[in-house]
Amino acid sequence: MSTKIGIILGSDSDFPFIEKGVKMLKEFQVPFRVEVSSAHRTPERTAALVKEFEESGVEVIVAAAGGAAHLPGVIASQTQLPVLGVPMQSALSGIDSLYSIVQMPGGIPVATFGIGESGAVNAVLFALEIMAVNDREIKKKLLVYREKQKMTVNEKNDRLKEKIDAL
Amino acid sequence: MSTKIGIILGSDSDFPFIEKGVKMLKEFQVPFRVEVSSAHRTPERTAALVKEFEESGVEVIVAAAGGAAHLPGVIASQTQLPVLGVPMQSALSGIDSLYSIVQMPGGIPVATFGIGESGAVNAVLFALEIMAVNDREIKKKLLVYREKQKMTVNEKNDRLKEKIDAL
Amino acid sequence: MSTKIGIILGSDSDFPFIEKGVKMLKEFQVPFRVEVSSAHRTPERTAALVKEFEESGVEVIVAAAGGAAHLPGVIASQTQLPVLGVPMQSALSGIDSLYSIVQMPGGIPVATFGIGESGAVNAVLFALEIMAVNDREIKKKLLVYREKQKMTVNEKNDRLKEKIDAL
Amino acid sequence: MSTKIGIILGSDSDFPFIEKGVKMLKEFQVPFRVEVSSAHRTPERTAALVKEFEESGVEVIVAAAGGAAHLPGVIASQTQLPVLGVPMQSALSGIDSLYSIVQMPGGIPVATFGIGESGAVNAVLFALEIMAVNDREIKKKLLVYREKQKMTVNEKNDRLKEKIDAL
Amino acid sequence: MSTKIGIILGSDSDFPFIEKGVKMLKEFQVPFRVEVSSAHRTPERTAALVKEFEESGVEVIVAAAGGAAHLPGVIASQTQLPVLGVPMQSALSGIDSLYSIVQMPGGIPVATFGIGESGAVNAVLFALEIMAVNDREIKKKLLVYREKQKMTVNEKNDRLKEKIDAL
Amino acid sequence: MSTKIGIILGSDSDFPFIEKGVKMLKEFQVPFRVEVSSAHRTPERTAALVKEFEESGVEVIVAAAGGAAHLPGVIASQTQLPVLGVPMQSALSGIDSLYSIVQMPGGIPVATFGIGESGAVNAVLFALEIMAVNDREIKKKLLVYREKQKMTVNEKNDRLKEKIDAL
Amino acid sequence: MSTKIGIILGSDSDFPFIEKGVKMLKEFQVPFRVEVSSAHRTPERTAALVKEFEESGVEVIVAAAGGAAHLPGVIASQTQLPVLGVPMQSALSGIDSLYSIVQMPGGIPVATFGIGESGAVNAVLFALEIMAVNDREIKKKLLVYREKQKMTVNEKNDRLKEKIDAL
Amino acid sequence: MSTKIGIILGSDSDFPFIEKGVKMLKEFQVPFRVEVSSAHRTPERTAALVKEFEESGVEVIVAAAGGAAHLPGVIASQTQLPVLGVPMQSALSGIDSLYSIVQMPGGIPVATFGIGESGAVNAVLFALEIMAVNDREIKKKLLVYREKQKMTVNEKNDRLKEKIDAL
Repeated sequence: MSTKIGIILGSDSDFPFIEKGVKMLKEFQVPFRVEVSSAHRTPERTAALVKEFEESGVEVIVAAAGGAAHLPGVIASQTQLPVLGVPMQSALSGIDSLYSIVQMPGGIPVATFGIGESGAVNAVLFALEIMAVNDREIKKKLLVYREKQKMTVNEKNDRLKEKIDAL
Repeated sequence: MSTKIGIILGSDSDFPFIEKGVKMLKEFQVPFRVEVSSAHRTPERTAALVKEFEESGVEVIVAAAGGAAHLPGVIASQTQLPVLGVPMQSALSGIDSLYSIVQMPGGIPVATFGIGESGAVNAVLFALEIMAVNDREIKKKLLVYREKQKMTVNEKNDRLKEKIDAL
Repeated sequence: MSTKIGIILGSDSDFPFIEKGVKMLKEFQVPFRVEVSSAHRTPERTAALVKEFEESGVEVIVAAAGGAAHLPGVIASQTQLPVLGVPMQSALSGIDSLYSIVQMPGGIPVATFGIGESGAVNAVLFALEIMAVNDREIKKKLLVYREKQKMTVNEKNDRLKEKIDAL
Repeated sequence: MSTKIGIILGSDSDFPFIEKGVKMLKEFQVPFRVEVSSAHRTPERTAALVKEFEESGVEVIVAAAGGAAHLPGVIASQTQLPVLGVPMQSALSGIDSLYSIVQMPGGIPVATFGIGESGAVNAVLFALEIMAVNDREIKKKLLVYREKQKMTVNEKNDRLKEKIDAL
Repeated sequence: MSTKIGIILGSDSDFPFIEKGVKMLKEFQVPFRVEVSSAHRTPERTAALVKEFEESGVEVIVAAAGGAAHLPGVIASQTQLPVLGVPMQSALSGIDSLYSIVQMPGGIPVATFGIGESGAVNAVLFALEIMAVNDREIKKKLLVYREKQKMTVNEKNDRLKEKIDAL
Repeated sequence: MSTKIGIILGSDSDFPFIEKGVKMLKEFQVPFRVEVSSAHRTPERTAALVKEFEESGVEVIVAAAGGAAHLPGVIASQTQLPVLGVPMQSALSGIDSLYSIVQMPGGIPVATFGIGESGAVNAVLFALEIMAVNDREIKKKLLVYREKQKMTVNEKNDRLKEKIDAL
Repeated sequence: MSTKIGIILGSDSDFPFIEKGVKMLKEFQVPFRVEVSSAHRTPERTAALVKEFEESGVEVIVAAAGGAAHLPGVIASQTQLPVLGVPMQSALSGIDSLYSIVQMPGGIPVATFGIGESGAVNAVLFALEIMAVNDREIKKKLLVYREKQKMTVNEKNDRLKEKIDAL
Repeated sequence: MSTKIGIILGSDSDFPFIEKGVKMLKEFQVPFRVEVSSAHRTPERTAALVKEFEESGVEVIVAAAGGAAHLPGVIASQTQLPVLGVPMQSALSGIDSLYSIVQMPGGIPVATFGIGESGAVNAVLFALEIMAVNDREIKKKLLVYREKQKMTVNEKNDRLKEKIDAL
């Protein structure tokens, strides 16, 4: 199966925050590619990747960047594929990354997720939700994922009860 | 054709900000529904709408809300359809709305867009981009839309030149 | 005596911040229950808990959550019991949690307390103050608690004096 | 019936924001008192009012103030009655008012509500919720109030539909 | 003389804020060009302009943009000419514009100026200061400009004195 | 000589931040008193201290507090002595402390200094500057202090030069 | 009597915010001087004014400025007289002005007051409080001023009562 | 060759953040000078340095400072050389430093760069870009620098691929 989800990180130092999301894609057995490319340092490489993604059948692009985080917007200006932006932590707690990604001008949309690892996980899940609209297999797997989440909450609840009794 | 995009506004006062996006959907001839329903004041109605949307074949849900803007997250907790959240202007310039929507915990994604009208337009465009992944007709229309945007910039440029010459 | 105060944590990782408050409830000998339940991951469980609380005579609900902290508002949309919201620390220092809780729309109130442990302690104290309106025993205990606080300040003052003399 | 809810405004200019809440109290036929008194300009008057409130059977105190909004905290330091703080709009959009009220140190709780009019309405509703714990009459009225809210949403929805059809 | 300063506005609606700066350039008789081009809507046009500027001997580029203001950074990624970024007012008072421009990653510099008109004036003055390093004529004119500023302050001081006497 | 400067800390945990300032007072041989007293936990003690200070000839009061930092404002409401407020670090980096102190309503002034230790040092220096208006001895000592600061900068400059040469 | 209070405004546009404070000085019959001088545009004039103030017996300097508000700090670096800084409203609501004034490094103190007119009034009152330490006449007048404030609150309270009765 | 770039640090503690930039200047073999001088503690020394810089042929001044960071603005008020300001990290994450530097009034420009080390590196690069306008040698070196950056991204990309394969 061809690559479905293309991920571009503005810096390799962003990888730890996206790692959990990448593992999830492996579990879901959805073909993906991860690349490091900067909107500012390697603009040509970024543009080339977007084209490659489009040509190889990628359906959603996830882009993570921090600070003056232009990567998702720059990608969105070059494609009509849905672009998901993940603001990375920064010296300003990721507020600068968030504003740089979410406040796109009307006409060129970027779907933005939370700052850091949770946001990266959610971007991946959202990419899967987009695919699930037309893919029953993924839809089922997402349902199972949600059920597992619920069970985890229940288990945590049980362990907490023990802690409180022990107070 | 059945409804493809379901839009829920937390308050009818949010409509002016979403109006431009709604007109765009009419132009794109994509069947949609707009409903007013509050996460807090009418939680049952909101839940019922989400179910109705799912059953009637809606592929993407857009939710706009301001202040402690829980609507998109509450909807996302009840469906696996992609949920697009639009933070509305508020007494805090929409910062509270933005944080309430974008900072979702890992596991329940909400795709967030810019504050106010631009964000609403972009949410609609993004919904169309999702549909375009599997719909050539919409893809073409989106291309035309982008070309028009470019021409508008050119026209504005021409008019500006005249202004500057007249200085 | 039946449960008087129901506490719901959005995540078990919030427990350390509420622990001090829970101990206080034990000291005050007020029957309480602590549960972990997420507004987004386990919405049905949350709704069920609120009902259980209502039916078992709970008089005040305390809800702690972080990030896009919808839990207190979601609970408030399902009950008329007083709901006390405690914003947890987050990647944004708890500002996102605070705004998500305090900026509720007119009509569905959530009483909000400070970010983190102090806020959790105060939410518990406030729950006791509500009960004290009609319960002389608790009223007395609260008075004693306040007197102890004053003595602690005095003791700290004495120790500080020694430090300053030693400079 | 004796006064149940005591309201103190830091300035008479805060009244327009609390007006809607005051009308609500009239409709609910709950006896209340509204006073203007500043934590800083008239500290003795503020202290005297708190005592009067306590002695006349007041069960909840609502305090609204803006800027360095010390009023709710100062009142809370002088009573064990539940104190509800409402941050007023200010030159800093009410952020200063909010922080000054919500970030109380552990030990002296103030229940905080949203900035401006919505917050004031919610503080009044919350005061009624506290009373409703032991007052079936008020509980019923609150239920009716919530039902009315729902109907309002429905009506607004209907009117919006007409607008959209007319686009 | 060939164009020395190239100005790109992200939107024609930014012109009123840059107008004062443009007039200054006319007074200084420094050849300049103003173009409207968006980083996102017309990325090719933006890239083409940067090349044109480079080839026609432009020495400094000024770029003004608001919201997720990527324009200055995108330009800087395509040239080694000094790029001056001016954050425009926005729904978030220009904070988003400022962060999007100033927080560039190490390696691709953008010189940032204040939000709105003052920032635009200062960007133009700064461009002139760069040119003045090797151009005595401009250096002299800048000196005169500063002297005029001082005289303006003195005149304003005189008029204020009259106002105060009249109190 | 009687006490000239009265210092009140909202909490003994604030002492490390004020320590440097206290040592400075010892060096300047200005009689001072440091007390711990909370605006909220020990309001009567705070009021009593202010009276004691006034009666014992204190000329300036320094008050340090964090979070909803009411202490300086509460003191200012009870005296006409100059009150200097020092915002302490907090969960919100001291922003809440700063706003709670600096945004006092017109009529009851509090002179505010920077967040944390630098602010505390400056509050002490400022208290000395006030005394220096009528005290030549202190004026001289302040001049010496400033000269020492300059020499320190010079020494640091020398050491830096060595570092740079060694690069 | 010689000038006691020297006021420097960074811009004549700041005057409306300081006007109320200036009138107060006239009422208190304290000799003062108001000058417009910019830290950046007229640094020599600012330095000269500080010297003049020192030589003519000024005891306190008030400086108001907005944006990157360096004026109070620049003055404080040139004198040991107490410097009171007033942050003016700005495009960023005065937050930039506030931070630029209050966050002075340890060693060069500036006493900071609230943003805008209230801050300016309080700076003037604080200057009078400093003078009152050694001037019984001013002390008395300040007491009268505070008493008037209290009466104003009472009057406003009376008028509010009428409004509420009329609801 | 005479000194081309003059660097002033508000404090020697800022050096670690500028170190990388200084090394870059050594590599580029551009003559520079680094001095420690405070706008507030050593205003005369700062003024003297600016004069020295001007007289010794310095073409660009870089100034780094934190908190109420007046240094770049104070320097800009004394010279027409291009001044590059670098906001240092602070108790407020550098937001206060940033606002104090970037929000200069119209008329006295300061080119501002990002907070901390990246900003310092970019200020140095920008100074080189200014010099490169008239210096082919530096222009070439900057091109090489950019190419190296691109290769670094590629290398990091390769290493990341290995990590992902190993997941």
